[in-house]
Amino acid sequence: MRFSVTSQMEYEVFSSSTLILNIHALKTPHQTIYKESLSITPHLEHVELITAQGENRFVRVEVPEPCALKIKYSAEVDNVIEFIDHEYLDDVAVAELDADILPYLYPSRYCQSDKLYRLANNKFGHIQNAYIKVVEITDWIYRNVEYLSGSTNSQTSAYDTVTEQAGVCRDFAHLGIALCRALTIPARYFTGYAFQLDPPDFHACFEAYLGGKWIVFDATRLTPLNGLVKIASGRDAADTAIASIFGSVVCGAISVSTQCMEKKFEPFFYTSDTLKGLNYL
Amino acid sequence: MRFSVTSQMEYEVFSSSTLILNIHALKTPHQTIYKESLSITPHLEHVELITAQGENRFVRVEVPEPCALKIKYSAEVDNVIEFIDHEYLDDVAVAELDADILPYLYPSRYCQSDKLYRLANNKFGHIQNAYIKVVEITDWIYRNVEYLSGSTNSQTSAYDTVTEQAGVCRDFAHLGIALCRALTIPARYFTGYAFQLDPPDFHACFEAYLGGKWIVFDATRLTPLNGLVKIASGRDAADTAIASIFGSVVCGAISVSTQCMEKKFEPFFYTSDTLKGLNYL
Amino acid sequence: MRFSVTSQMEYEVFSSSTLILNIHALKTPHQTIYKESLSITPHLEHVELITAQGENRFVRVEVPEPCALKIKYSAEVDNVIEFIDHEYLDDVAVAELDADILPYLYPSRYCQSDKLYRLANNKFGHIQNAYIKVVEITDWIYRNVEYLSGSTNSQTSAYDTVTEQAGVCRDFAHLGIALCRALTIPARYFTGYAFQLDPPDFHACFEAYLGGKWIVFDATRLTPLNGLVKIASGRDAADTAIASIFGSVVCGAISVSTQCMEKKFEPFFYTSDTLKGLNYL
Amino acid sequence: MRFSVTSQMEYEVFSSSTLILNIHALKTPHQTIYKESLSITPHLEHVELITAQGENRFVRVEVPEPCALKIKYSAEVDNVIEFIDHEYLDDVAVAELDADILPYLYPSRYCQSDKLYRLANNKFGHIQNAYIKVVEITDWIYRNVEYLSGSTNSQTSAYDTVTEQAGVCRDFAHLGIALCRALTIPARYFTGYAFQLDPPDFHACFEAYLGGKWIVFDATRLTPLNGLVKIASGRDAADTAIASIFGSVVCGAISVSTQCMEKKFEPFFYTSDTLKGLNYL
Repeated sequence: MRFSVTSQMEYEVFSSSTLILNIHALKTPHQTIYKESLSITPHLEHVELITAQGENRFVRVEVPEPCALKIKYSAEVDNVIEFIDHEYLDDVAVAELDADILPYLYPSRYCQSDKLYRLANNKFGHIQNAYIKVVEITDWIYRNVEYLSGSTNSQTSAYDTVTEQAGVCRDFAHLGIALCRALTIPARYFTGYAFQLDPPDFHACFEAYLGGKWIVFDATRLTPLNGLVKIASGRDAADTAIASIFGSVVCGAISVSTQCMEKKFEPFFYTSDTLKGLNYL
Repeated sequence: MRFSVTSQMEYEVFSSSTLILNIHALKTPHQTIYKESLSITPHLEHVELITAQGENRFVRVEVPEPCALKIKYSAEVDNVIEFIDHEYLDDVAVAELDADILPYLYPSRYCQSDKLYRLANNKFGHIQNAYIKVVEITDWIYRNVEYLSGSTNSQTSAYDTVTEQAGVCRDFAHLGIALCRALTIPARYFTGYAFQLDPPDFHACFEAYLGGKWIVFDATRLTPLNGLVKIASGRDAADTAIASIFGSVVCGAISVSTQCMEKKFEPFFYTSDTLKGLNYL
Repeated sequence: MRFSVTSQMEYEVFSSSTLILNIHALKTPHQTIYKESLSITPHLEHVELITAQGENRFVRVEVPEPCALKIKYSAEVDNVIEFIDHEYLDDVAVAELDADILPYLYPSRYCQSDKLYRLANNKFGHIQNAYIKVVEITDWIYRNVEYLSGSTNSQTSAYDTVTEQAGVCRDFAHLGIALCRALTIPARYFTGYAFQLDPPDFHACFEAYLGGKWIVFDATRLTPLNGLVKIASGRDAADTAIASIFGSVVCGAISVSTQCMEKKFEPFFYTSDTLKGLNYL
Repeated sequence: MRFSVTSQMEYEVFSSSTLILNIHALKTPHQTIYKESLSITPHLEHVELITAQGENRFVRVEVPEPCALKIKYSAEVDNVIEFIDHEYLDDVAVAELDADILPYLYPSRYCQSDKLYRLANNKFGHIQNAYIKVVEITDWIYRNVEYLSGSTNSQTSAYDTVTEQAGVCRDFAHLGIALCRALTIPARYFTGYAFQLDPPDFHACFEAYLGGKWIVFDATRLTPLNGLVKIASGRDAADTAIASIFGSVVCGAISVSTQCMEKKFEPFFYTSDTLKGLNYL
């Protein structure tokens, strides 16, 4: 499925600063970038970086002096999505996990799985199939956590959200990840562009490692699972912030758009009928 | 400097379990392993794994059925330590950091640097040289945090320690890391064997990225900086737990020893006279 | 019902200190003290104090110099307990609450009801009768929180327990109180002697203000509701600590006993058959 | 000194609700109300309540049905302030404290003094005179905590503020109270009208119990200490919220004014020259 994505951000920069931006569509075996452009006004030095394991591709922009900064990214991206029957999506034993998957079992800044162990096991421990377990987790989050813009901030973590039960996509994702890890299911943060998200914005959801694949889940139900374009994955939002800012900078307007370039798009959500997982990478 | 290290751990295993053990001395350009042995009683299948960036080398042990488990590791390790004058140990601008260093700027489970930004800047922001800054941070921790066995647990984080002002080596390290990151200095957890640590045990301290090198710091002052044998580095203790246990296991006795195999060992600590940083790699 | 209670505490006192002890049975219209004795060895000056609203009767002991301190309290207490049918135990509208009841609606140190609002309403908001609501709260705590000695400490609060799901009687009580207040039901901490508690100890549970009466609830189910002798009530454990210590003192052995002095004691617990609330005061 | 105070609040009420408002000037031996009026539009049933110990005088308003609600309070208040030399303002031993003062030593919702014990003693424990100790506490807060509107919310507590070092008057007060209690100095929250506060608003500061008197302190330095009209005191903001709302209500505009009715007002702040404490009650 081909998508056209754009994002535009404005910053008021007051001093020499560095910005790290996670807005580029990721290049993966399943996600191909056809056209891509990044425009920075005024023109500034910048560099594209990719983390060692390729789960993150970002630009670092040097802003040598105060200015009104505009950044515009656009790309056309082709996604191949794999649908996998839930029978193939069971737990991978810790004994079988690769060294680079293990860190996704450990607690992180916003996903304190170590504190959710009993709660996760009380609520979901009895469920046999791992895919069904994660579907139940996302359903529970959907039913119990209110999507409420402005109810949380950049310090809010899964430990807060599990009790306070309000948040935005980032908080829904963190809670899903923390519950998975508490059940010994590796899970990671997924940030991306999302088709049919209303209002349009960057989106966050999460991936659980089932049957040896990263399967995407979204507890917000705000956007079809097959309409995502991945920007990055990481342990949580600390790794994949849209913008990390070093210097005196105030964020202005942000606009994001995601269009499907094909005529026919059939929105896909997990339901009790479709016991299939969706793998982006 | 050559060291002989051993560690011995006993576990009572009640069900089929997996253990991930971070007890091996790390292989680095500066740390060479001469002899090494791992004995597992009863004999069990295990595999040695190394993370992608080589900062962590661990064994995963499968325990198929209940047993009394004994693990003994021993090694002879040669360390080359580099002493670097503080003039060469200044901040590296974010604009110059490699992609694999950047994550050590971000907050992690036990090092919520995002919450310590004002405190760190109020206390240490005025200090020019980055090496002096980190020395001041460790001095402040040493003077204000009481080393008190049993005062904290596996959930205690830098955010707790900065206020509660009691803890063990792990807590001292987490607080040092969090304060560095809050000042835009990459910092990571260092776990290892420590000569002259009394009573002998595994030890934790931290490294700050200064002048393009990882320089070791230890706010506990419990062990000479040149007596360390590195096991692993990571974002915090979540990445480098001595033992991560999946299954029903109770930890029994642990014993650790670190001997210097050379006649002459001159303990080295940072002082106001010796403005040099020490790099283990 | 008549009970004989005793408690004995030993302290090692290292400096001039003051102790505030909440170990006396409270005098209320429904709880009469027949015999009572307090022995302090060595003999020390002390004074009995009662808070303005009579919910707390404590002794303050001056320890002028280091000593090995022994305190022994014993009393015979007669309780009149009122059983009230749940139909009479509904919410009291905020508009009808007395000024001295209102503070029990507000969050306190260990009962952060302000953070549990959504969770409490999601879980229990749909239940009509307030008595049934509180019974459901205690049942939920009983089913989800593991009673685990040593799992918590004096800083643990309801906000921790609701997620970490382990604790002791104090934690069970704090969580019950916090959930009630989040549902606009005044609730307070109850500390006392408890018949048939095994092993014998001081006990904590809570009271909810229903139908104009303080009705006792105990989410631990460790002791019959009609076997309690009240020591104090307060907002939470901060108000009613068994011992508040000012000075350098180490706590030694504590022993507590509660005997029923009547031949026939029929343990009473809330069940779905007995929709009655039990009022101690 | 005579002051004229007014406050006006607007609410959009969506369902039958109850409001508890702490906006009345308190009646104390030192604070006399000359004229007072409360207007509620539309006209609604309400009742004035006073807590048992008189530290809180509030109105409870019944709103039977949806409406646009306007509340206006105005009063003329005469204050007699006592200035007490710091030599008379030393610690009161716990052994000498009245039963109704003791609760102000205990931790409360927003003032977790139990977690600040080491920090408070490390920073301020060496200071002899208790008045100087509290002055140093407020100076430290003033220097280290940034006054930043919107940086905190109704859940922010002293434990947050001591580390995050930003907040509003309420947070400054909570931190001062928590530090005092950690040093065994009873302390309580003070909410009131404040002359020369810019922009005009309700204000919060705190009182410490020194030499047997409640002495007022204000770490914000935003308003003269002799320009306050007390509304209430309590353990913390949980006891003395300007408005506690039970029902579906949205808060609209608030306006507050405090005028001095005498020609000559000499603003008084604590300085190193004036070692005097100021007692409102």
